[in-house]
Amino acid sequence: MFYNFPNDFKVFEPAPGFLVRAVSGQRLMFSHVTLQPNSVAPLHNHAEEQMGLILEGEVELTIGDEMRQLRKGDMYLVPSKTSHGATAGAEGCIALDVFSPPREAYK
Amino acid sequence: MFYNFPNDFKVFEPAPGFLVRAVSGQRLMFSHVTLQPNSVAPLHNHAEEQMGLILEGEVELTIGDEMRQLRKGDMYLVPSKTSHGATAGAEGCIALDVFSPPREAYK
Repeated sequence: MFYNFPNDFKVFEPAPGFLVRAVSGQRLMFSHVTLQPNSVAPLHNHAEEQMGLILEGEVELTIGDEMRQLRKGDMYLVPSKTSHGATAGAEGCIALDVFSPPREAYK
Repeated sequence: MFYNFPNDFKVFEPAPGFLVRAVSGQRLMFSHVTLQPNSVAPLHNHAEEQMGLILEGEVELTIGDEMRQLRKGDMYLVPSKTSHGATAGAEGCIALDVFSPPREAYK
């Protein structure tokens, strides 16, 4: 199936300045994330495995004990139950996060 | 973990003009796809569920009985065992395809 963005997506705001638009199949969830400039996604963890791709802007991402400055085209993996968090750069950030199984909190 | 592109990725050429670079977690596989101008990914199907996002260019994508012209930002779902294929536009296409479980043929 083909999605119409953003109409087909469920919208969530897990933290201030942190907007999520999500769609799911049976095993996969796409989460289109917009972080406002300098906004913070606090450290958290979940059982679902997560992979992501930065689409626009910059973000400082922490995964476990590692921290990196990421920009467009960068990709990452957050294993199940691994602590992670993000701080957007001065121009904000847009990313695609993918979860398997679909993240319970965003269904 | 953070990936270095393209060094950390396995490279495949499933069809002429159709380049895949893949990395996997336990449940997820990212497949960064580059289609040369006017190249064709023939109709095929697989058990793994697939979701995708167009990153650059244009592509005519068929999923089951539906066909659409897609461009940057468009997203889609290919359910397990559903026939799908693609024909790139005159400037080619770059897409992110995601599989769960990781696609056997690309491991």
